[in-house]
Amino acid sequence: MTGVVPIGHVHSGFADPELLPPQSLDNIAAIGSVVIRDDLVDALLGLDRYEYLWLLTWLHAEPIESQSPPLQLVPRATEATGEVQGVFASRAPHRPNPIGLSLVRNRGVRGNVIEFAGVDLLDGTPVLDIKPWFADADEPSR
Amino acid sequence: MTGVVPIGHVHSGFADPELLPPQSLDNIAAIGSVVIRDDLVDALLGLDRYEYLWLLTWLHAEPIESQSPPLQLVPRATEATGEVQGVFASRAPHRPNPIGLSLVRNRGVRGNVIEFAGVDLLDGTPVLDIKPWFADADEPSR
Repeated sequence: MTGVVPIGHVHSGFADPELLPPQSLDNIAAIGSVVIRDDLVDALLGLDRYEYLWLLTWLHAEPIESQSPPLQLVPRATEATGEVQGVFASRAPHRPNPIGLSLVRNRGVRGNVIEFAGVDLLDGTPVLDIKPWFADADEPSR
Repeated sequence: MTGVVPIGHVHSGFADPELLPPQSLDNIAAIGSVVIRDDLVDALLGLDRYEYLWLLTWLHAEPIESQSPPLQLVPRATEATGEVQGVFASRAPHRPNPIGLSLVRNRGVRGNVIEFAGVDLLDGTPVLDIKPWFADADEPSR
């Protein structure tokens, strides 16, 4: 992975993809943290005012080096019917650019550590970006 | 940009960053499109069922090659008070990894073209990923 660089890494206690909930908000009782690179701590100023954060991550556990991801699959949304969908019509981690988007609840920032609730990320997942969640940018119905 | 590769590009008619609305939903009357690479068309199957989509983009107009982005700035959210914030507490395009997150309204897929409403992206912006918006993954209050 070049071009994008980790700004930090996730500590989540989840090492097994099979045991990981598919969405962070399905697992709001679980607590994780992001440890940010020391040289980027200044970029966290003011993050405490936001209750919800986006974590943009690199889904590193996926075997992107060895094989191309499938372009179609049966995602969770159509599991009941078995209907095949394109990967862009899914949140599956196998994607041409394996960038994950997780909405988490901010539990506070101390130094270079952000503690959050809602875990759908494996231990050690590289974090590419953190953004505050804004209703006027991120909510369809208004 | 390596490691991540464009899956397609935005056609928006906006060439001047100064004239671009900061958020897509502030500009819902504007229509844009994403033209997807021919070899990825199969990945669009089923996208038509979703009314809202995330576009993850590479904010290529930012001068990331020539200089490091500032880690702190006065973003729109605190413009009134002039309060300085860390870049991760903002949606500013200058970021260590300049990945943009835009929520747009899906107007339909034809072949390798997705037409959408809500434009906050410059003409020619590389698209890294497309994901359906799901209430249970992307909405804090439930």
